[in-house]
Amino acid sequence: MKALVTTEDSGFGLRMADVPEPEPRPGQALVEVRAVAVNRGELSMMAMLPPGSQLGWDIAGTVLRPAADGSGPAAGTRVTGLADGAGWSELAAADTARLTPVPDDLDWTAATAIPVVGLTALYALRHAGLLLGRTVLVTGAGGGVGRMAVQLAAASGARVVAWVGSAERAKGLRELGAAAVSTYDAEETGPVDVLVDSVGGQVLNRAYRLVVPGGKVIVYGNTTRSELNLPVDWGHARPGVQLRYVHLFHELPAHPVTRDLGFLVQRVADGLLDPQVATVAPWTDAEPALRALAQRQVNGKVVLTI
Amino acid sequence: MKALVTTEDSGFGLRMADVPEPEPRPGQALVEVRAVAVNRGELSMMAMLPPGSQLGWDIAGTVLRPAADGSGPAAGTRVTGLADGAGWSELAAADTARLTPVPDDLDWTAATAIPVVGLTALYALRHAGLLLGRTVLVTGAGGGVGRMAVQLAAASGARVVAWVGSAERAKGLRELGAAAVSTYDAEETGPVDVLVDSVGGQVLNRAYRLVVPGGKVIVYGNTTRSELNLPVDWGHARPGVQLRYVHLFHELPAHPVTRDLGFLVQRVADGLLDPQVATVAPWTDAEPALRALAQRQVNGKVVLTI
Repeated sequence: MKALVTTEDSGFGLRMADVPEPEPRPGQALVEVRAVAVNRGELSMMAMLPPGSQLGWDIAGTVLRPAADGSGPAAGTRVTGLADGAGWSELAAADTARLTPVPDDLDWTAATAIPVVGLTALYALRHAGLLLGRTVLVTGAGGGVGRMAVQLAAASGARVVAWVGSAERAKGLRELGAAAVSTYDAEETGPVDVLVDSVGGQVLNRAYRLVVPGGKVIVYGNTTRSELNLPVDWGHARPGVQLRYVHLFHELPAHPVTRDLGFLVQRVADGLLDPQVATVAPWTDAEPALRALAQRQVNGKVVLTI
Repeated sequence: MKALVTTEDSGFGLRMADVPEPEPRPGQALVEVRAVAVNRGELSMMAMLPPGSQLGWDIAGTVLRPAADGSGPAAGTRVTGLADGAGWSELAAADTARLTPVPDDLDWTAATAIPVVGLTALYALRHAGLLLGRTVLVTGAGGGVGRMAVQLAAASGARVVAWVGSAERAKGLRELGAAAVSTYDAEETGPVDVLVDSVGGQVLNRAYRLVVPGGKVIVYGNTTRSELNLPVDWGHARPGVQLRYVHLFHELPAHPVTRDLGFLVQRVADGLLDPQVATVAPWTDAEPALRALAQRQVNGKVVLTI
């Protein structure tokens, strides 16, 4: 079967290859993949893995062979979820605990754009507690997780302030529920109860200064690859403040993933959550879309159709 | 009645003055103070308050008049606890929810040395969860809260590593339960599950690098008055890591203080917790002891007798 694998030969680091079919473990279903979504985390991994490595978490497709242990969806079920790291492939193995059914009226491109960004945003916000009546500042709000976090925080009753790196990145954020959109302007923002950051560096430093005593800072990325730097009174001026680094694959074992992902999928199917698919390309011509994603020029998700 | 008040005239910023007796609110007892303990937080406040201001949290003494609302200990009860900020005085008002009885066989100097440092250490460690089988690194372990944190973490089943600024500051820490004592030497320390810091700056940076994924960092001070600076991989290399700033007066409303303080007092009375009273001086001659405390030359508590 065909799969995208890392290579040192081509321009962007991926090539199509013939690879052996995956051998699912007892708790894994074998999925015939129809579409995958690309995350910045995978771009980072591409650079680190040896040539010939497979990649890919987000998949959507049809169950070809259900799990041997009897768990999860039956053969023929349309599903989306997290493959076990080799999803950019015609066939992928996935833990049934990380799959959820997809309604017939939801297309593959929307379905595959949900798992990584939706669950990351959902689990990040869960650490903030009840958001009703709170102000939530989302930095890097123009990206995939950022756009999910804006929508999910707004749906939780929060006033959401979205910070983006440029006016271009702000497109559509008000429609997604942001009460205010700003290019990292602290003066416009005012005090915030919850800060959700993925930028790091000076943006995090500036945003942090707005956090109130007892506030919560949830970080899920560091796109500027900066040291963490906060002002001298970072704690003393904010007794009880909490800072937490959330990583999706560390969170998963603590949550009912099938149910949570099912909630997100249904919300998308109902038109209440927009997965913000920005670019769809055939997987045979992925390079331009991946390049744009690496350069943070994509306002949402890159999806590859198989 | 007499009280210590701030002044611009004298060398260290305090003088004895005649002040009006406090007027307790309905939930406050009036305490005849026999001894007080001095905290570094009060030294900081001295510099900021206008001349003539009273100070003081830790008190031990006898209830002269119980609270008007009927709460708390009866007249004549020996107590220790937190005065409402004017404890360095012959008479002090204190919320009964922040007082606890003192056994007859526990002297005033030991009793008054417990509340601020004992409750700060206890509430800091509570945020770490179960410590049995965990490694806890305490920085600034030579100070008042540090010495409490070492003892309480060891009593919770943790392996405690104590970091101190100098060999002189290390005195007695092994006897208090530290499995290892080091002058900020990361190589000797190895991975830690919980970091309790009050030093900040480069010490916190160095200690942080030892924290494992999912580890907890609890900060209750910043004696170096430094910006918070952590390495680039502060989060990515430690998914789930949590950082929290704990301030005693922010914590108090969330805890049963009378009961918690009673536990600490009983533990001291039973010889299981040492309040580390390092210097006792009459309040009429407080200056040398306060100077030594400000210069971090005191391995434990400064107590003033009234």
